[in-house]
Amino acid sequence: MNPFDKVIHQPIRLQIMAVLTSLEDDEQLNFVDLRTLLNATDGNLGAHLQKLEEAGYVASEKVFLDRKPCTWLRATAEGLGAYRRHVKFLRDVIGGGE
Amino acid sequence: MNPFDKVIHQPIRLQIMAVLTSLEDDEQLNFVDLRTLLNATDGNLGAHLQKLEEAGYVASEKVFLDRKPCTWLRATAEGLGAYRRHVKFLRDVIGGGE
Repeated sequence: MNPFDKVIHQPIRLQIMAVLTSLEDDEQLNFVDLRTLLNATDGNLGAHLQKLEEAGYVASEKVFLDRKPCTWLRATAEGLGAYRRHVKFLRDVIGGGE
Repeated sequence: MNPFDKVIHQPIRLQIMAVLTSLEDDEQLNFVDLRTLLNATDGNLGAHLQKLEEAGYVASEKVFLDRKPCTWLRATAEGLGAYRRHVKFLRDVIGGGE
């Protein structure tokens, strides 16, 4: 077993997981808001979200609001666990304090 | 400017930089000890050190001790700066505390 998670370690994906795992249980974030938060492009964010979905770390649901597509995103329980393990790895490497 | 450093972000290289930047000013670490610390193979560690040297983050010096080659390693000032910036990026993403 690797101590680090290759899927999560990539910087954009690390930021996606940080945002999605910080949501409350009943909270979801949509694609457009996440894109704004991370200052990412559609294509880039889409590709990284796909990798996270393939790994089972992120779940998405496409709905239509006023006939406009809206994609809701949330971290899965598996994704939360993987993120927490990876953060522990990072903290072990870079240290906890200043 | 990217907020993260692609060279340093790779997990093995992040660990190398964490170890080398933790040394005192007059301290160096040799290749064999670093390999043991990181539980890495010769080839893997060598390849990652080469990337760090190419980026100017690590300096090495090969000497012979009792006719055996020994490679001393240290982080450069540039490497230390880059590592600190990257650690700041990571802390901003994953948060400081538990």
